Amino acid sequence: MKEKSSKPWGGRFLEATDEFVEQFNASVGFDKRLYRQDILVSRVHARMLARIGILDDQDCDRLMQALDTVAAEIETGSFPWDCALEDVHMNIESRLVELVGDVGKRLHTGRSRNDQVATDIRLYLREAIDGIDLQLETLQQVIVTLAEQESGTIMPGFTHLQVAQVVTFGHHMLAWFEMIHRDRVRLAQCRKSVNISPLGAAALAGSSFALDREFVATELQFAAPCANSLDAVSDRDFAIEFCAFSAILFAHLSRMAEELVLWASAQFGFIELPDRFCTGSSIMPQKKNPDVPELVRGKSARVYANLFALLVLMKSQPLAYNKDNQEDKEPLFDTVDTVHDCVVVFANLLSHIRIDRAQLLAAAQQGHATATDLADYLVQKNVPFRDAHEMVGKIVQHAIVRNRRLDQLELQELQAFSSLIETDVFKVLSPEGSVRSKNTYGGTSPEQVGLQVRRARQRMREFRES
Amino acid sequence: MKEKSSKPWGGRFLEATDEFVEQFNASVGFDKRLYRQDILVSRVHARMLARIGILDDQDCDRLMQALDTVAAEIETGSFPWDCALEDVHMNIESRLVELVGDVGKRLHTGRSRNDQVATDIRLYLREAIDGIDLQLETLQQVIVTLAEQESGTIMPGFTHLQVAQVVTFGHHMLAWFEMIHRDRVRLAQCRKSVNISPLGAAALAGSSFALDREFVATELQFAAPCANSLDAVSDRDFAIEFCAFSAILFAHLSRMAEELVLWASAQFGFIELPDRFCTGSSIMPQKKNPDVPELVRGKSARVYANLFALLVLMKSQPLAYNKDNQEDKEPLFDTVDTVHDCVVVFANLLSHIRIDRAQLLAAAQQGHATATDLADYLVQKNVPFRDAHEMVGKIVQHAIVRNRRLDQLELQELQAFSSLIETDVFKVLSPEGSVRSKNTYGGTSPEQVGLQVRRARQRMREFRES
Amino acid sequence: MKEKSSKPWGGRFLEATDEFVEQFNASVGFDKRLYRQDILVSRVHARMLARIGILDDQDCDRLMQALDTVAAEIETGSFPWDCALEDVHMNIESRLVELVGDVGKRLHTGRSRNDQVATDIRLYLREAIDGIDLQLETLQQVIVTLAEQESGTIMPGFTHLQVAQVVTFGHHMLAWFEMIHRDRVRLAQCRKSVNISPLGAAALAGSSFALDREFVATELQFAAPCANSLDAVSDRDFAIEFCAFSAILFAHLSRMAEELVLWASAQFGFIELPDRFCTGSSIMPQKKNPDVPELVRGKSARVYANLFALLVLMKSQPLAYNKDNQEDKEPLFDTVDTVHDCVVVFANLLSHIRIDRAQLLAAAQQGHATATDLADYLVQKNVPFRDAHEMVGKIVQHAIVRNRRLDQLELQELQAFSSLIETDVFKVLSPEGSVRSKNTYGGTSPEQVGLQVRRARQRMREFRES
Amino acid sequence: MKEKSSKPWGGRFLEATDEFVEQFNASVGFDKRLYRQDILVSRVHARMLARIGILDDQDCDRLMQALDTVAAEIETGSFPWDCALEDVHMNIESRLVELVGDVGKRLHTGRSRNDQVATDIRLYLREAIDGIDLQLETLQQVIVTLAEQESGTIMPGFTHLQVAQVVTFGHHMLAWFEMIHRDRVRLAQCRKSVNISPLGAAALAGSSFALDREFVATELQFAAPCANSLDAVSDRDFAIEFCAFSAILFAHLSRMAEELVLWASAQFGFIELPDRFCTGSSIMPQKKNPDVPELVRGKSARVYANLFALLVLMKSQPLAYNKDNQEDKEPLFDTVDTVHDCVVVFANLLSHIRIDRAQLLAAAQQGHATATDLADYLVQKNVPFRDAHEMVGKIVQHAIVRNRRLDQLELQELQAFSSLIETDVFKVLSPEGSVRSKNTYGGTSPEQVGLQVRRARQRMREFRES
Repeated sequence: MKEKSSKPWGGRFLEATDEFVEQFNASVGFDKRLYRQDILVSRVHARMLARIGILDDQDCDRLMQALDTVAAEIETGSFPWDCALEDVHMNIESRLVELVGDVGKRLHTGRSRNDQVATDIRLYLREAIDGIDLQLETLQQVIVTLAEQESGTIMPGFTHLQVAQVVTFGHHMLAWFEMIHRDRVRLAQCRKSVNISPLGAAALAGSSFALDREFVATELQFAAPCANSLDAVSDRDFAIEFCAFSAILFAHLSRMAEELVLWASAQFGFIELPDRFCTGSSIMPQKKNPDVPELVRGKSARVYANLFALLVLMKSQPLAYNKDNQEDKEPLFDTVDTVHDCVVVFANLLSHIRIDRAQLLAAAQQGHATATDLADYLVQKNVPFRDAHEMVGKIVQHAIVRNRRLDQLELQELQAFSSLIETDVFKVLSPEGSVRSKNTYGGTSPEQVGLQVRRARQRMREFRES
Repeated sequence: MKEKSSKPWGGRFLEATDEFVEQFNASVGFDKRLYRQDILVSRVHARMLARIGILDDQDCDRLMQALDTVAAEIETGSFPWDCALEDVHMNIESRLVELVGDVGKRLHTGRSRNDQVATDIRLYLREAIDGIDLQLETLQQVIVTLAEQESGTIMPGFTHLQVAQVVTFGHHMLAWFEMIHRDRVRLAQCRKSVNISPLGAAALAGSSFALDREFVATELQFAAPCANSLDAVSDRDFAIEFCAFSAILFAHLSRMAEELVLWASAQFGFIELPDRFCTGSSIMPQKKNPDVPELVRGKSARVYANLFALLVLMKSQPLAYNKDNQEDKEPLFDTVDTVHDCVVVFANLLSHIRIDRAQLLAAAQQGHATATDLADYLVQKNVPFRDAHEMVGKIVQHAIVRNRRLDQLELQELQAFSSLIETDVFKVLSPEGSVRSKNTYGGTSPEQVGLQVRRARQRMREFRES
Repeated sequence: MKEKSSKPWGGRFLEATDEFVEQFNASVGFDKRLYRQDILVSRVHARMLARIGILDDQDCDRLMQALDTVAAEIETGSFPWDCALEDVHMNIESRLVELVGDVGKRLHTGRSRNDQVATDIRLYLREAIDGIDLQLETLQQVIVTLAEQESGTIMPGFTHLQVAQVVTFGHHMLAWFEMIHRDRVRLAQCRKSVNISPLGAAALAGSSFALDREFVATELQFAAPCANSLDAVSDRDFAIEFCAFSAILFAHLSRMAEELVLWASAQFGFIELPDRFCTGSSIMPQKKNPDVPELVRGKSARVYANLFALLVLMKSQPLAYNKDNQEDKEPLFDTVDTVHDCVVVFANLLSHIRIDRAQLLAAAQQGHATATDLADYLVQKNVPFRDAHEMVGKIVQHAIVRNRRLDQLELQELQAFSSLIETDVFKVLSPEGSVRSKNTYGGTSPEQVGLQVRRARQRMREFRES
Repeated sequence: MKEKSSKPWGGRFLEATDEFVEQFNASVGFDKRLYRQDILVSRVHARMLARIGILDDQDCDRLMQALDTVAAEIETGSFPWDCALEDVHMNIESRLVELVGDVGKRLHTGRSRNDQVATDIRLYLREAIDGIDLQLETLQQVIVTLAEQESGTIMPGFTHLQVAQVVTFGHHMLAWFEMIHRDRVRLAQCRKSVNISPLGAAALAGSSFALDREFVATELQFAAPCANSLDAVSDRDFAIEFCAFSAILFAHLSRMAEELVLWASAQFGFIELPDRFCTGSSIMPQKKNPDVPELVRGKSARVYANLFALLVLMKSQPLAYNKDNQEDKEPLFDTVDTVHDCVVVFANLLSHIRIDRAQLLAAAQQGHATATDLADYLVQKNVPFRDAHEMVGKIVQHAIVRNRRLDQLELQELQAFSSLIETDVFKVLSPEGSVRSKNTYGGTSPEQVGLQVRRARQRMREFRES
């Protein structure tokens, strides 16, 4: 056991930190990722200290240069990271003191690591959000392009994974568009929660120096300083919100991924994935596996888990900062990386799938997908819907027993169930007639899909400009 | 085994549903809670059908009257709920058919339970949100009143549950205010996600009838119809968003509850809870337990879990509706109830706590809470902050060994550490001087707390009007 | 506000409990389900008190009779449940006092609700476990019967939902058997954790009466009393363990359910579910939905969530009992009910699926499922496996381009890739030859499946007897 | 885009893998941690292939040497890890082929990465479990030593964080012992689930080579081969079980950590942590923070989350292996590391806490902790317990109003509530008398604590030997 602490905070300590504890406590292994933000924050803090007369201009200039040096050292790999200095903040401060002596020791005036790290993370996350939103927009563009291209492509729509009604592939794609659109709205909302400045909250109480929190907020392009200093250092809502956004996004991506996996199976055969997105098997020479959608689907697990880690972490913590909060960074970083990579790879994959229109049409002809159209036909002839439904149910049963499709039944067979059925029924029973008739707002008809495509593009434009 | 299905959808079925399966599948046990919404939706749907000529006006009137009858039957307890009819929708439709025959059989024209239930839940949740927001506002008012009243009350501020700096009770309360404010912002955002109309999406593809979805949306006071019918019946984002809002709210409530439990302990003794909010022990006659905050804290578990349930539920579901989705209702209902009750009880409790100012002050004098003030004092005399910190650390160590508070040290003792220390130091070392000096924006000084109270009230007003 | 508490613990309270708080705090709404256990525990506790001379025999007899009366009242619905009495324990105790006066007031000697409720839940859960294990055994029997019956039924085995190798349906069923077997092993282990007696721990410290904890444990058929009284009242591990068992079970059931849903789709067509296990659509007359497996799959969400709820609940609770723990019961009860119902319905469904052997065989012939067999064939002729794999990969590519199956290629075509290929290759390329050759321990050959069936039955027997 | 795949499985692929996809798919970044296990498995597999005549002895020897080389290269850091080779398995196989040519290409005969990775992880986890169990035993020893040493140290026992009854510090420690003991039992059970050999399951169907699975299992010290090959490659129960064990362990550690944090606060002051386990504040010179227990408490979040990640991951996966499963490794590795480090650091910390007996005694005298003793005293004088409870409640109320402890009331004051109270009551009201009287099995009396210590040591011995 060393006899005395050499830590920057070690004045009141009578023994040095235990070595295992030092490792256990240190966050520099993962928080050094924040170095750019940390340096920027120090830069603005120093300039603010100069503005209010705590630093003189010359000292401030020396600090700026020293911060440049630190940034350069880190980027070239020559920075002497030291786990004994715990985190990115103390590592950088200590190096500053080495570089410029006393001036470096003045930088931490009126601030604490509590407000510093909160500011760093917010800056980091704001930038990450902007990058992710761009990738989500790219994904939407891929989807809308597909939707337009396949606006008339007939496929079976499923509920309960049973063939339900005939829809168009473009229509299905636009359901995906809606999911991602909502995700972007949530992300934009989350950005607002992120974009507030904790700096100046100091440890928790504010400062006895006349800090100019507005100046700092403005320089860092935050919308405003946090309104309450105690809250400023203990709030992690913005990180939880980001993880909640991500979890819902992955609920969507997992659904899309599941569909791609199903559609790429031999049984469905709706699409083919390009070889360069797939891998093979070490033992089975014929295998071509849809790894990318599988992995995206699987990664929903970690993204969900990261959200729960943060919620569990915050549960029952008394104010203000507790060391537990150090555990907020890894789930957040992992979520940012996972979201980014998965959105990129998913958009890229999606823009290269090959769609087997013949197979989709064949599948739409199975499963009596136009039975509802037949019921609607009877309603048009004034049969109450519930009776029409019952009648068609019996016709379907009749067809199943004979192993025929509805449109393969003879007119007489149909008429045996209702004399109201006439020869025009066969238009209704065709997949083409079926989708064309679903011409309500938001419906699956090629016309409606065309309108939805136009609106989707308009909404993307408006969103970008908002 | 019965030979034939008597279900409203049973036309194509050759055997009746197994009885255990009927029970297992049925949702009417919990979804009958939606009866008001379901009747309202049917009312508007019927009027829309009349507008577009599917129903004649007389039939529409008869349906309106029959829906009134159903509502009355349900509210008086005479409605014949039947588990064999699966859900609230089929129960009501079947009763309508009993009441008005063929007209009842026409009501389901152009709609499906898929879009119907999605509409019902959105209406239900919108109303629940409005009620919860009111309760959150009440809670904020209680907090702000407390903050104003205790804006000068000195207490220890904690980090790591160690005494950190002196703060004011009012300042601490305003940290709570901020949490709830963010919750209300999130809730308002969630309301927007909820407030869209799925009706007219039918099963998933839209309808072959010329449904007027705009009319329906307007009548139900929705902002707009959902843009894509497939998405409309499979989207549960709004429910997940509500549960995410609730989970973050409970992260906050659990933190506040934890503090109340700590503060009410014999060891802290900061507050006393009124007898009528506490219970005793069946065995220990002296016990008076803070059940309410404990239970609020404990209920964070179910609220977190409900969010998790919905996310897990949606994972990997191919479009569109799957039966899995029936499991969305119980977690949502439970979350609504839990949020509502806990916010009500918490606000009520909080407005009745008794605050022990003497005990708070005494606690603030423990733990060398003004050490940072002493360091800042030295910085004002041009000692670099890091050196000042080191120096004060040693003074604290000196005081601990002698079992004295910083303000109980003699001036000479202090000067042994730095000759810059003069007699004015004792103002800095007093709790009152310490809080008064934290006069930065958002800081803990009584003056700042007063400003924060005013701003808080202003923000509540603006929020209400927005 | 009432002026005085009338609660059984109200001696030191100066005001009555707030009414909303009373409702909020009360657990009797859900814990009355424990009445049988609670009465049994009181019965044994009273007899123990008599044994050690705290009660005289006559009083003990009167208590026994009164407990009988209470049980009868509850079972006939005439018991006056009162939310103001908080929970099942106080409701029963109060009724006893009404029925037999002072003697009733003696029953709570040497015990607390803390140890009482812990004992009640353990008794409840032990019984639930025994019931669930029986249902799991029934499920296993259904699976093994299917496995035996379909031990030679050829089907495609999948990895990545791509056809991988040919397997037998029986073999696939036995994979399900293994999952359930591990679940039963875990359940048996959990039963051991449950089966310990907290009674006599009193509030947390033990008792100043000479309670005979061994007697109580023996009478209640517990393996032993809990070793430490503080732990006895704060331990909920057994409940978490049960929920962890349930979560893993539902990971399995959700996988099986997913397979049933896939297999019942038009695209796979491997099985058909009986009408009586399915429901239809309110709008689409042809629909027949696999609700049961969908709902089982969906219910994995609540079961996972219940586990999570209990873990979150216990996090960071200081010893010993806290009110938070009241929240342990609903997730546990819900898990017990869900597990029970799903296992019952799943076993019942499974025993009635119809298997389409022709469709399974046809599917096994797609996707080049015998490519590995061809590679192995080449290895037998001394080609290094990695080279054989490469070679067969190219043959598969050749077949895909020509849209032929491997066994539809001409011998010459094959020999163009390797002259080692001879006419005997076609035996290897047939599905029958392929499964027959997988004759390793645990493999898919009909012979191995037969052995696995026999072993499965043997293990079930041994397990039952253990 | 490269024109041809150079992957070991690339025979049937017409284009090279996309570079981003390659990165995205690769697991070698984290699974290289399994290199020791992977080499061991290859070693045993090769020897088995030699035994059954697939490899000749000379080739087998060359493989052994090459595997030695690979191991040495990895350990010295000269191994050419290549992300394009996806995972640890293909990296090692490719290197073997470089080193020994054709022989290397023979190694993968009769196995797949599916069974290989499952075997690797089981070996890895088995070793990790054994290490963790040792650390848990050390933790138990620290606890038991403390319990023995403080078997007579009086402290307040809490329920609802309110003083409940007087207990001994040793008794409290033994509650912790029980938690850890149950954890070890669960871990031992988990080890059994882990200790089964998947090797020989190949891709999913078993192999057409006459693999000797028993030999492999025995050589790898597994209890047996997995019974069903399909299950063998898709089962991840053992990993989930380990994470469930870990989650419950962390529920316990978080409770203990919470208590340490409370106890080390100025308000409780029950213990002091050595300086070398604490850190200070960057701004507040007096701070000494209990980082270690805080961080252990906080890490419960990630451990809970890892369990949920695995459960979510497995949900609804059709058999057998899917790429999603690649996501199983990171949560498992993270859990192993976290469990290990936290148990080590917690045991180390605990063995060095300083206990303030005077402060504990003083706290035990607050809060009327002997009220139950007084009620029991009255029961001994034949007052029915419920009446005694009521009476003592009033005495407590009387004492609170006068701001006195129960043992500071005059005999006459007590007798005003019941004439049965005599001078011997004061023995009962003393903390010493109170704990001494709790002499039931598992109770808090020093005598019982002594017995529990002895039994704890005995159970540890028996467990070790079992």
